[in-house]
Amino acid sequence: MTNDPLVIFTPSGKRGHFPVGTPILTAARQLGVDLDSVCGGRGICSKCQITPSYGEFAKHGVTVDENALSEWNAVEARYDEKRGLKKGRRLGCQASVQGDVVIDVPPESQVHKQVVRKRAEARDIILDPTVSLYYVVVNEPDMHDPSGDLERLTMALKDQWDIDGVSADLHILGIMQPILRKGEWKVTVALHQGRTGEPPRIMHLWPGFYEGTIYGLAVDLGSTTIAAHLCDLRSGVVVASSGIMNPQIRFGEDLMSRVSYSMMNAAGAAEMTNAVRAGMNQLFDQIASEGEIDKTLIMDTVFVCNPVMHHLFLGIDPFELGQAPFALATSDAIRLNARDLGLDIHPAARTYLLPCIAGHVGADAAAVALSEAPDKSDDLVLVVDVGTNAEILLGNREKVLACSSPTGPAFEGAQISSGQRAAPGAIERCEIDPVTKEPRFKVIGSDLWSTEDGFMDAIATTGVTGICGSGIIEIVAEMRMAGLVDAPGLIGSPEQTGSDRIFLDGRTHSYMIYDGSADGGPVITVTNRDIREIQMAKAALYSGARLLMDKFGVDKVDRIVLAGAFGAHISTKHAMVLGMIPDAPLDKVTSAGNAAGTGARIALLNRAARTEIEATVREIHKIETAIEPRFQEHFVNASAIPNAVEPFPILNSIVTLPTATFNTGGGGDGGRRRRRG
Amino acid sequence: MTNDPLVIFTPSGKRGHFPVGTPILTAARQLGVDLDSVCGGRGICSKCQITPSYGEFAKHGVTVDENALSEWNAVEARYDEKRGLKKGRRLGCQASVQGDVVIDVPPESQVHKQVVRKRAEARDIILDPTVSLYYVVVNEPDMHDPSGDLERLTMALKDQWDIDGVSADLHILGIMQPILRKGEWKVTVALHQGRTGEPPRIMHLWPGFYEGTIYGLAVDLGSTTIAAHLCDLRSGVVVASSGIMNPQIRFGEDLMSRVSYSMMNAAGAAEMTNAVRAGMNQLFDQIASEGEIDKTLIMDTVFVCNPVMHHLFLGIDPFELGQAPFALATSDAIRLNARDLGLDIHPAARTYLLPCIAGHVGADAAAVALSEAPDKSDDLVLVVDVGTNAEILLGNREKVLACSSPTGPAFEGAQISSGQRAAPGAIERCEIDPVTKEPRFKVIGSDLWSTEDGFMDAIATTGVTGICGSGIIEIVAEMRMAGLVDAPGLIGSPEQTGSDRIFLDGRTHSYMIYDGSADGGPVITVTNRDIREIQMAKAALYSGARLLMDKFGVDKVDRIVLAGAFGAHISTKHAMVLGMIPDAPLDKVTSAGNAAGTGARIALLNRAARTEIEATVREIHKIETAIEPRFQEHFVNASAIPNAVEPFPILNSIVTLPTATFNTGGGGDGGRRRRRG
Repeated sequence: MTNDPLVIFTPSGKRGHFPVGTPILTAARQLGVDLDSVCGGRGICSKCQITPSYGEFAKHGVTVDENALSEWNAVEARYDEKRGLKKGRRLGCQASVQGDVVIDVPPESQVHKQVVRKRAEARDIILDPTVSLYYVVVNEPDMHDPSGDLERLTMALKDQWDIDGVSADLHILGIMQPILRKGEWKVTVALHQGRTGEPPRIMHLWPGFYEGTIYGLAVDLGSTTIAAHLCDLRSGVVVASSGIMNPQIRFGEDLMSRVSYSMMNAAGAAEMTNAVRAGMNQLFDQIASEGEIDKTLIMDTVFVCNPVMHHLFLGIDPFELGQAPFALATSDAIRLNARDLGLDIHPAARTYLLPCIAGHVGADAAAVALSEAPDKSDDLVLVVDVGTNAEILLGNREKVLACSSPTGPAFEGAQISSGQRAAPGAIERCEIDPVTKEPRFKVIGSDLWSTEDGFMDAIATTGVTGICGSGIIEIVAEMRMAGLVDAPGLIGSPEQTGSDRIFLDGRTHSYMIYDGSADGGPVITVTNRDIREIQMAKAALYSGARLLMDKFGVDKVDRIVLAGAFGAHISTKHAMVLGMIPDAPLDKVTSAGNAAGTGARIALLNRAARTEIEATVREIHKIETAIEPRFQEHFVNASAIPNAVEPFPILNSIVTLPTATFNTGGGGDGGRRRRRG
Repeated sequence: MTNDPLVIFTPSGKRGHFPVGTPILTAARQLGVDLDSVCGGRGICSKCQITPSYGEFAKHGVTVDENALSEWNAVEARYDEKRGLKKGRRLGCQASVQGDVVIDVPPESQVHKQVVRKRAEARDIILDPTVSLYYVVVNEPDMHDPSGDLERLTMALKDQWDIDGVSADLHILGIMQPILRKGEWKVTVALHQGRTGEPPRIMHLWPGFYEGTIYGLAVDLGSTTIAAHLCDLRSGVVVASSGIMNPQIRFGEDLMSRVSYSMMNAAGAAEMTNAVRAGMNQLFDQIASEGEIDKTLIMDTVFVCNPVMHHLFLGIDPFELGQAPFALATSDAIRLNARDLGLDIHPAARTYLLPCIAGHVGADAAAVALSEAPDKSDDLVLVVDVGTNAEILLGNREKVLACSSPTGPAFEGAQISSGQRAAPGAIERCEIDPVTKEPRFKVIGSDLWSTEDGFMDAIATTGVTGICGSGIIEIVAEMRMAGLVDAPGLIGSPEQTGSDRIFLDGRTHSYMIYDGSADGGPVITVTNRDIREIQMAKAALYSGARLLMDKFGVDKVDRIVLAGAFGAHISTKHAMVLGMIPDAPLDKVTSAGNAAGTGARIALLNRAARTEIEATVREIHKIETAIEPRFQEHFVNASAIPNAVEPFPILNSIVTLPTATFNTGGGGDGGRRRRRG
């Protein structure tokens, strides 16, 4: 038995006996307690703040008296005076053990802080990025024992932080010597620590103790938009979020048209590579400006994207992705220097691309898998991420299946006669009165319905400009529920529907949503062709999900997670009315928001998540829809529009479909329905 | 006991029993016999040629009959027809074991070929470069089990060559897919394999079997000249050698003037970095053109240079090297991508810089140590490498000391009144008749002495233009031996010397070597200031060597190796007359030629040599001449010029020095000589 005082840390519960005079930081390190420190215990960084608890702790069997820690010292007093120390707090590197003591490590003093996610059901992120800061004191050069400044710096990291085998980026060699001297041989090092076996790499140096922070970017590189989150790598907090249109759009709206562009033009792929990289730099400038940070403090980047975007961003011609067998150039995760992609941030910044799952199932799907973790789910979960392509995952702890389905850009408002991207002025919500067949709608930029007072004033600057993706989905669903469209997708005549908003438009009918022509504005209608586009898109989506269910050998899923545009903008109710997704109880359908972006953020903030998702992706079973006859079969069967779905009562109907239609997934074939087991 | 036939390989002597039908290549691999193969035994590359021996082998206890190997097959016949197979040769991958057999592996079939060095005493180089070629057959993509082309390629390297953890350069991703398809899933891979733990990296791909070779460059980056050897990495042969002036010369002739330039000009270091990198690319273009090769086939580069050149080449301001404590930015070896230095060769080419020993003792000295291996010498060897700076190594198996001495550029013809670089027209050899005091000389570009018939015709195109480094050394030594210069270094008057070639030139005398003024040519003289320059330079060199001897605790060395300009151009006899180097029996003084360049070539051709020299350099004791009082003392004592050295009889003398002067090392102080123990 030792007579040394007992030190107990909360919340970890770790405990040990330490000689009188041991600094709390030292005790924490020896016990493996997660207590932060950048300066290594020199009383400079104040990251190691702890709260001693006094009194009797029956469950620990200790009594802590007021002399349990050394007295408040000059370093703590100076820090308190300069920056203010919360009442009851001590600096772990200054306060030393004098008697039995219980020490609480507050969340902000933990190295591996929990970054809390907004959704209740989602796991928090443990902060452990690839780039961290270390303060070191470096030996001065000695002519009698000559060695390079870099070698003495790496020796300091070894001696003071137990980090071995450190190397340095070439640009560090160019800037290191004046910095070491300016800091009088004390420097703060930004160190990249990648996978096991990958040598730690010095990315940046600041003279003396660097008070600031460093940043990373989680980027969702979509076919249509590029969205980025700027994260503080010391706190895990999102400092700014920003997005731009993908400049590749001028080469083609959807993926296949861009692949075609590269096939038709010798330098096409290179042009698109240049365009997306230039766009990326523009976005980075924009987000750095919004976050009011120096963009050279951005030291890590994580990208998620579909395979075509992935290849074009890396400078790979996506030719092979345009034809069977859809061979990816590379499917594994990619680690490289950001500068090799022409990214103009910190010169030593790193880039990580999540692995691709298959030729049509990209790093974005991998990111969704990382965020939603179907492989860790006890019940069977269907994860659907809708962009220009839909990524679909189905699985549980036993196995996970994945596929991609070419929904096309209709869900994003493209290829729709009055369609437009989600921007102020676009119709995003719609309701159609089943009796009067009159619509009311909301446009982006106003919370008022079009029928409410003040609507015209509220939208005076933008006007009503078109219909965005969520708008067209609601409109088509509402038209079906109002009896303006039949199950096979034909808009009825004014006579059949009893609506004077319906008019003959060529060989089919159209429905007038809004007529702004009196004020020189647009006439916004929904044509039968628009209905067809939405039918094709939703059939593709539904068929993919149904195919995975077939492969899994199930007829229903326990829960559905909607990610991407779905969660953010598309109404779950209307999606189910349209038959975009298989049926499930509404309380088992949750929205994950931009799950791909969240996956990117997880990979940015937690380096273990990278190796984790790489292992997960290797285990995912890939299903190629293009070679599955059942996919075509499901597709044909899924093009009809059911007119209601539990728990929404059938409001009006021209064709009444058998109930079975709804139970098996919203697909219908206008009467010639085949059931599958 | 097995009944399987016995296979014995020569010259290795390795042996083992193998089942009938085992290909010889397979047997060799299993026994670890060094038998080359690029195609992995597919009968394509023909690198695995072997020669079976028949008859009775008493010492091995086997008799080999003519049926010991399988019959000559169609693959061998086709190769013989297309390319010709030497009589008696078989392809190791085709010929299989049928009975006891003795197999000789000819030198050209060994993977780790010996690259023979010209000098008898030098160790041969074992060919084992960092970049090698491998032929693989890659699985085709499969939609049912999707994986990236790169992943299937790396799997092929694992399965077919047992090379694990292979990654690829970004540019490979951009070019790989068409190459795999063009080669119908058969490709030749150029693979970089660095240190243990460094993942092998795909640098290049050729469709099908690549019949050609790949190259590397060993570069000696000197203050004055940059010299490169272009080596075939498959054979180790030097394909071309070329050199250019270092374009940094416009910023200053010697190292310290370049350091000053960087101190005086904000962008000075960057200017010099750009200049040397541009020069490097010019040299590479030149050598590729001379070698008649495509320069993108250059995949590896090794550089040796002094610390200032090292820093400027890497883009590091050499500021700190210009002042005590002469701190290097980094002393360890550097491994990086050639493109990061702006080198325009293969896009994935690698660069290796040998480690520096100290602030004044660079990677060039390390290269000399690698080439001359004082650390492996049984007797005590002094290695002296003269460039603008002199690198000096002294040691044996027990320990090695190193220092650098600032000889300045006089030995290269700079700072000499009629001095010039070694180029056609420069006086490079000289003899002065001790009786008549008349000189005769040779100029670069002609083998005739100036006194021989036809000399003027032979030099008609160049004329006599000046005196190069080796010339001035010979002239000063000859002047001393002819009694034109006294031991302290003063040129005598015409009266004292009895030579009408001596004339009053300001306050001192000069000696006329050549008067071409009648033909509009130059008047070439040696001034007393020139003598002083040579005295300073040789005193610096001698003092450095003497300092190392003091530190080693010895008064003489067993042998001397002269490297650099010495071996190539400077006469050993005259160097010893001048007292540039300590005394040693002439048969113990050898010339190593460009040892730094050779060291670079060794590091290029043998990757183990890199880790070896890195370990050696860590063990070398560095002596900083600038802080050694004894260096100054030696320097003062060494400025005098002895007038002879054994075994050269004293021909003429103004001041007769005690014999001790010559025995202790050629230094003299004009009578006030102090001896050291």
